[in-house]
Amino acid sequence: RRGEMAKSTQLIDNEVFRAYATYTGIVLLKMMLMSLITAYFRITRKAFVNPEDTASFGKGESAKKFLRTDPDVERVRRGHLNDLENIVPFVGIGLLYALSGPELSTALLHFRIFVGARIFHTFAYLIPLPQPGRGLSWAVGYSVTFSMAYRVLKTAWLL
Amino acid sequence: RRGEMAKSTQLIDNEVFRAYATYTGIVLLKMMLMSLITAYFRITRKAFVNPEDTASFGKGESAKKFLRTDPDVERVRRGHLNDLENIVPFVGIGLLYALSGPELSTALLHFRIFVGARIFHTFAYLIPLPQPGRGLSWAVGYSVTFSMAYRVLKTAWLL
Amino acid sequence: RRGEMAKSTQLIDNEVFRAYATYTGIVLLKMMLMSLITAYFRITRKAFVNPEDTASFGKGESAKKFLRTDPDVERVRRGHLNDLENIVPFVGIGLLYALSGPELSTALLHFRIFVGARIFHTFAYLIPLPQPGRGLSWAVGYSVTFSMAYRVLKTAWLL
Repeated sequence: RRGEMAKSTQLIDNEVFRAYATYTGIVLLKMMLMSLITAYFRITRKAFVNPEDTASFGKGESAKKFLRTDPDVERVRRGHLNDLENIVPFVGIGLLYALSGPELSTALLHFRIFVGARIFHTFAYLIPLPQPGRGLSWAVGYSVTFSMAYRVLKTAWLL
Repeated sequence: RRGEMAKSTQLIDNEVFRAYATYTGIVLLKMMLMSLITAYFRITRKAFVNPEDTASFGKGESAKKFLRTDPDVERVRRGHLNDLENIVPFVGIGLLYALSGPELSTALLHFRIFVGARIFHTFAYLIPLPQPGRGLSWAVGYSVTFSMAYRVLKTAWLL
Repeated sequence: RRGEMAKSTQLIDNEVFRAYATYTGIVLLKMMLMSLITAYFRITRKAFVNPEDTASFGKGESAKKFLRTDPDVERVRRGHLNDLENIVPFVGIGLLYALSGPELSTALLHFRIFVGARIFHTFAYLIPLPQPGRGLSWAVGYSVTFSMAYRVLKTAWLL
């Protein structure tokens, strides 16, 4: 079965596609990590949003006080949403880019800079670092995705 | 034309890819359903966020009172955002996983558990079920995606 | 290298896939534009959410007054989230649809209507246009994605 699969698609044998799969896997796992960090802060800061989540703290008023927003929780959530807004375009455009036949070295450069910028962005958001640290790392990732989109549209253009 | 298409890609003839397409289609439709449920609660609870959405209820103060948040609307929206945070990684990593040549039975197990867990998660969020129902279904889906990412990175690793 | 790539995947030589790549590239760039519009309104309205973003406006209370929500900023953010909720399913289901071997003319019709509807939706949200302008454009895009999902599930169905 493995042989048939490889014969019929062979995508995973393509080096650019393997690079795409590796960096996309890493950056999506990084994004998923934001859920765990949110959960960590919700539990340690005792700041929840659903009444059923505070049931273990007791009933009535004693539990209600844990239904509140916490600055650290909200900060992680903003970082998570920013990931969604930026990593979704990377995953979609990056796939098309990987299939557009770029040089491996050029593709690796794009993928490495994007993933590095997003990891830096997360640290800049959570520590937080003074601006323009976070803003610049956002702009770097944004520019990489834009550069890939340019090549995709140039190669595939069919309106 | 269909013949050419099939010859040039053949992905859709691959059983693992067909399974991926089926479960991804189902879980993305489930996610899209959240928009309809949000709209349903916004209309029945008369809780809107854009002034132009309340224009049909009259002008001035009589319409302004419908610009408010409603617990049921907010609950569905949280479920929708949680879907985005978890289904996006599944779709991206799942595609790479399907192309990495797994056994059909193993792939089906991953896809079925993920989609089942996310459907359960939606019911747990909207009813709502007492914890840890929602938390566990979230963790099951998360673990499935993590397991697929592990195989993708092991197969494709090219930094 | 380009030759090898083309030989091993050939997806980008397929006309339906090229159309998918073009329209997906356009609609993801449109979604990314929402980040720039948000930044534009945050800066011109001086409405920020992270304390470190207001540091350049001075220290203490003088900077704190810029940590506020602004209706225009919130409107763009809602448009951005609506894009995520609707463009993510389009990108995922559209890829599977493009690989399911549809007629080029049918595929182009789906992609063109979706992208046109989402561009209209953005204008309807930001101007804003009176309802049901925004609602209808949302429904058109939603229906196109649903129609593609129907074909994907009919073609690929393997539970």
